Amino acid sequence: MAKSIQPLDKLVDCFRHLPGVGTKSAQRMAFAVLDMTDEDAAAFAASILAAKQKISRCTLCGDICEGEICSVCADMARNRSVICVVEDSRDVAALEKMREYRGLYHVLGGLISPADGIGPERLRIKELLSRLDESVSEVILATNPSIEGEASAMYIAKLIKPLGVKTTRLAYGIPVGGELQYADDMTLMRAIEGRREI
Amino acid sequence: MAKSIQPLDKLVDCFRHLPGVGTKSAQRMAFAVLDMTDEDAAAFAASILAAKQKISRCTLCGDICEGEICSVCADMARNRSVICVVEDSRDVAALEKMREYRGLYHVLGGLISPADGIGPERLRIKELLSRLDESVSEVILATNPSIEGEASAMYIAKLIKPLGVKTTRLAYGIPVGGELQYADDMTLMRAIEGRREI
Repeated sequence: MAKSIQPLDKLVDCFRHLPGVGTKSAQRMAFAVLDMTDEDAAAFAASILAAKQKISRCTLCGDICEGEICSVCADMARNRSVICVVEDSRDVAALEKMREYRGLYHVLGGLISPADGIGPERLRIKELLSRLDESVSEVILATNPSIEGEASAMYIAKLIKPLGVKTTRLAYGIPVGGELQYADDMTLMRAIEGRREI
Repeated sequence: MAKSIQPLDKLVDCFRHLPGVGTKSAQRMAFAVLDMTDEDAAAFAASILAAKQKISRCTLCGDICEGEICSVCADMARNRSVICVVEDSRDVAALEKMREYRGLYHVLGGLISPADGIGPERLRIKELLSRLDESVSEVILATNPSIEGEASAMYIAKLIKPLGVKTTRLAYGIPVGGELQYADDMTLMRAIEGRREI
């Protein structure tokens, strides 16, 4: 903006650093803040600070939680013999929303990505291995079907298999409600490879 | 999210109330806040409060500013005989970026919209009329070419014309770089109506 107002520019800049927010959207958000009541703006600022202060990582699975242990790890009714390994907390949220999976989780905190300089030592893989005692019978590698997700799954599978723990990967295929003609070649190939008798 | 973490849900909710932000984007933004350093999160929260506290409305034109009078109204080098009337501060920012217009502004703070229950009394029209002394020779009605923008411009024009002040409207037409075949009928019609000899 040619007519620069420093506190506004600063706020626009903060919004612009959020994922998926460009300059125009950031300006719109900053103006929305100016149009808020004082109470709403104060509540917004407070919720940012509260989220940072109150939310930490579960010392077992690495998922976000309030306190030491997350609600899934603390829930003794869950099936403790299965651990589902995911990239980040949003994956846990997506799987929990489904209300079907009743095992535990392990959050890696990223994926192996040599291009971004992220090696396996940056992920919570050591912590995963330390959880694999005789009570664990299966590890589901539920990283995304991307290059990085595949590489991370393969890397972890190689470490786990010698321990005699069953290692599985999520099924690939046509998404439910998706259309064959819009599926990419890789997905179609995987869908045919993974075909099942009905 | 099935696994509900109250401070996170609250933050997601704050983001979701910003314009153009859906639930998924709001979640992404909230997780981005969790991934920020403590300093960055504190700076973000502080910039929200600072923007609200330090930014007010110029008592003359109604644009946002720090202090009583905005930098345009305070700039004695500007052409004080022309006032450009816009819907909100972002329009001022867009026009200022162009660095061509050297007159003054007047921010309405909205548009007349009976559907949303916004009548002319909710806009800063009285304030505009009170600025129209003999020093002002032209008022440019630069509201958007929408139904509400047109209605507001027509309403204001009717009030101003009896005062003997020249009243103009921005030109309509094909946007520069735009393509005829993608222009809507109304725009094409206006472009033909407003054609000029070259």
